[in-house]
Amino acid sequence: MVESARRKKRSGGRAGNAERRGLAVIEQMPWNPPVNIDRPVAPLTEEGIAAIHDGAMRILEEIGVAFLNEEAIEVLRGSGGCLIDGANVRMDRDFVMEMIAKAPSHWTITPRNPDRTLTMGARHINFGNVSSPPSYWDMKLGRKVTGTREMCRDFLKLSQYFNCIHFVGGYPVEPQDIHASVRHLDVLYDKLTLSDKVAHAYCLGKERVEDVMEMVRIAGGLSDAEFEARPHMYTNINSTSPLKHDQPMLDGWMRMARRNQGLVVTPFTLAGAMAPVTMAGAVAQSLAESLCAVVLAQVIRPGACCAIGTFTSNVDMKSGAPAFGTPEYMRATQMTGQLARFYGLPMRASGVCAANVPDGQAMWETSNSLWSAVQAGANMVYHAAGWLEGGLIASPEKFVMDCEILQHIQRYMDPMLTATGPEDIAVEAVREVGDQGHFFGIQHTQDRYTTAFYQPFLSDWRNYEAWEASGGVWTAQRAHQLYQDIIASFEAPPMDIAIRDELAAFVERRKSEGGAPTDF
Amino acid sequence: MVESARRKKRSGGRAGNAERRGLAVIEQMPWNPPVNIDRPVAPLTEEGIAAIHDGAMRILEEIGVAFLNEEAIEVLRGSGGCLIDGANVRMDRDFVMEMIAKAPSHWTITPRNPDRTLTMGARHINFGNVSSPPSYWDMKLGRKVTGTREMCRDFLKLSQYFNCIHFVGGYPVEPQDIHASVRHLDVLYDKLTLSDKVAHAYCLGKERVEDVMEMVRIAGGLSDAEFEARPHMYTNINSTSPLKHDQPMLDGWMRMARRNQGLVVTPFTLAGAMAPVTMAGAVAQSLAESLCAVVLAQVIRPGACCAIGTFTSNVDMKSGAPAFGTPEYMRATQMTGQLARFYGLPMRASGVCAANVPDGQAMWETSNSLWSAVQAGANMVYHAAGWLEGGLIASPEKFVMDCEILQHIQRYMDPMLTATGPEDIAVEAVREVGDQGHFFGIQHTQDRYTTAFYQPFLSDWRNYEAWEASGGVWTAQRAHQLYQDIIASFEAPPMDIAIRDELAAFVERRKSEGGAPTDF
Repeated sequence: MVESARRKKRSGGRAGNAERRGLAVIEQMPWNPPVNIDRPVAPLTEEGIAAIHDGAMRILEEIGVAFLNEEAIEVLRGSGGCLIDGANVRMDRDFVMEMIAKAPSHWTITPRNPDRTLTMGARHINFGNVSSPPSYWDMKLGRKVTGTREMCRDFLKLSQYFNCIHFVGGYPVEPQDIHASVRHLDVLYDKLTLSDKVAHAYCLGKERVEDVMEMVRIAGGLSDAEFEARPHMYTNINSTSPLKHDQPMLDGWMRMARRNQGLVVTPFTLAGAMAPVTMAGAVAQSLAESLCAVVLAQVIRPGACCAIGTFTSNVDMKSGAPAFGTPEYMRATQMTGQLARFYGLPMRASGVCAANVPDGQAMWETSNSLWSAVQAGANMVYHAAGWLEGGLIASPEKFVMDCEILQHIQRYMDPMLTATGPEDIAVEAVREVGDQGHFFGIQHTQDRYTTAFYQPFLSDWRNYEAWEASGGVWTAQRAHQLYQDIIASFEAPPMDIAIRDELAAFVERRKSEGGAPTDF
Repeated sequence: MVESARRKKRSGGRAGNAERRGLAVIEQMPWNPPVNIDRPVAPLTEEGIAAIHDGAMRILEEIGVAFLNEEAIEVLRGSGGCLIDGANVRMDRDFVMEMIAKAPSHWTITPRNPDRTLTMGARHINFGNVSSPPSYWDMKLGRKVTGTREMCRDFLKLSQYFNCIHFVGGYPVEPQDIHASVRHLDVLYDKLTLSDKVAHAYCLGKERVEDVMEMVRIAGGLSDAEFEARPHMYTNINSTSPLKHDQPMLDGWMRMARRNQGLVVTPFTLAGAMAPVTMAGAVAQSLAESLCAVVLAQVIRPGACCAIGTFTSNVDMKSGAPAFGTPEYMRATQMTGQLARFYGLPMRASGVCAANVPDGQAMWETSNSLWSAVQAGANMVYHAAGWLEGGLIASPEKFVMDCEILQHIQRYMDPMLTATGPEDIAVEAVREVGDQGHFFGIQHTQDRYTTAFYQPFLSDWRNYEAWEASGGVWTAQRAHQLYQDIIASFEAPPMDIAIRDELAAFVERRKSEGGAPTDF
């Protein structure tokens, strides 16, 4: 691979500076979260849906799930629908269905910039950045290193910059140079000042959850009542499969439910490891684990805004390593989508891969996972940009490359592509050109050519000779250059100075109080 | 990118040699052309289908297509359904529909090894190798060079080796070191001896078509009557868009129709260049061009085995360069699939990209095109492995990488993945493990783990550290090594020595006669 990279030609001086700023680095598609116009891919028959539903219900009725949180146990005991034995909670299927029927089929999240409000549910698709890798890789380093705040800030800038990233999930890379007791304060300060998109809180102890809710409230300039009037942020919890919800996850889940924020529960059910080796079994178990958390939320707050996620994949049975973007992963995602519609709940999926570097394998695995999310009718796609090594590495090149795929999906959902009005069928244009000449110059083309087709920002469509003459740069290296350019020219979205000061003061105060305990 | 590559550990001596041979290089999926179990993606409403059909019929009725072949004109004149003005042929829609109703909805092609018989139509998917690039690129060369017979032979070996390649299309790279007058003889000799899969003839003049039919007949050990009893090979013609079929293409098309071989017609309608800038218009024109060729075949031989292909994509409106695997390409493919089902004809699509090297872009563009072929319900997928630079380059690394995606598709269509019997839902396995432990060791897993999940041959699922320790090899470089190993250990399928001699003698004789004219 050639190390040099194509750079855009630029003029110097003030005009050049202006051009470099903000959105000028690439021509990207506008902010416009896609609406899924396709019928979902539905591998299950009605009987198949019923069989998986029955399996999930039998798991909840006959086997039960451990709720490792006394408060949650007491809430469920008071619900009148659960059989409780220590931490083990069994739920009657009628009770489960009655509770999840209270959950709205779609709901909104309104971040500090209301223009960035997202709808979770119906046919809406929302993409988020990679979240939670401990490590970082980029082409300049050429190796895997521990995440830092600076790297995390760079990903927050990329997340804000790209219009195809609709929400900012967890830490895009874990900034391990910040002490864990105050990490949430610094990262949320960075996130809320560098971005105006929907933000997220990890459920890692009550102090963190409360701090993040307070910071999102401050950033939005909201009163407590306004904050609780509708979701302004969300959390995502993972069950500890098989069949357990742990203490801090449940604690945060309940705190967020009480304050009417978005609730997403995503079991991590690797078939053959934490779940049955059969995909339908792994999906049934995943549903049991997610639905009982939705029940808990509905008991606490009927109508709480919930979504169920899928993270069902398979392991490599030779090594036990997790695999992502496999055929099994795709089918599990699609099956979960069918069941999410059956339950009337919004759905979360992911853009994931097992590849260690942003190469061909990374792209076929990520394409498989992203498109299967779309085919499943997922409303929220986590890790949609930047994920490598099964989530252990965040990479800016991968982030930029994935955004090209996300733009494909956004464009693919534009009804213009499949419009069939008389001007689309264009018999008169065909008549005009006849069997001689070409369509470049005719009026029908001239009227439409600027918007007729998707324009990539990273794909290089030049022929080999032109590509070679400009350095012969492979995709990942082109993405590296774009990442550098975007970071260099990034401008944070506007924020009222008083709000910024209030956020900073909050962070200072909480740091002086010692932040959050680290013994979770 | 690190230039070293992971090599399989091998023992030396005769056992090592034996292991290296034949199928031992990788563990690949068995020969098993997939059956599409998904409902096709259908972006068009019934009204949309009707609108595109009406557009195609109006083009045929009102504008007409040029048939630049006097024999074809006379055949169509004699059909009683055409209005002919010079080369321009207009067809009444009732006549068109009456003729294409004679074409079978599915048909078979039986190559010299009957175990490799393919079904074109219904829900069958068949993948073929890259065909017709003039140039070659591999990682060792690191540059684009003119195709040779040796390179062509290597691709034929790859095409035979991989079970996910079901037919051997045109020349996988144009061997320009063989004179054009005899090129078809040498390549077909190579193809028919190195492979036992379905083969193809280019329509480049009567001598070539007749020679190739004769060689396929000889290779199959068939009498003339047996050869003509059913298709044993096929051709693919391209119209010269807009609205022309040229002399040699029509000549070969009619020769093959008379001898009852497979007939595929694929207009190359780049929207905005050779077709309307609107995708529905480009699809309508493509259908008009393909359907009138099907009509010609049915007039010659009612019941002739036809399929219609799509090669509708868009151009980069800035440069005029063709683009592949775009959102527009995907939708055009899906729309064509809806119309192919409307007409009751088998369908061909392609695995294509604009990328110049086997990098990330190559994989997202190829994933988009291959999956859209699947979503469209395509029966025949050309260029499914090895294509780069919009078809100007064939690459062995790309071939190997694409085969991993093809195996994904084959596995994805295995009904096992979405089975929902009691043993699949596996409530008892969930009960056995409960909320402690894991599923690795239980009987339900042990009974299934060897076949439960897709096993890749090229994806590296090890963690970063293990991957790095073994050289940190990127996908394309791993593919290069596999390509080398496969070629080194290739064994041709068995062929009766008498048949081989007869083929060689035929080639000798035709060469001594001067081969085919090169003034086409």
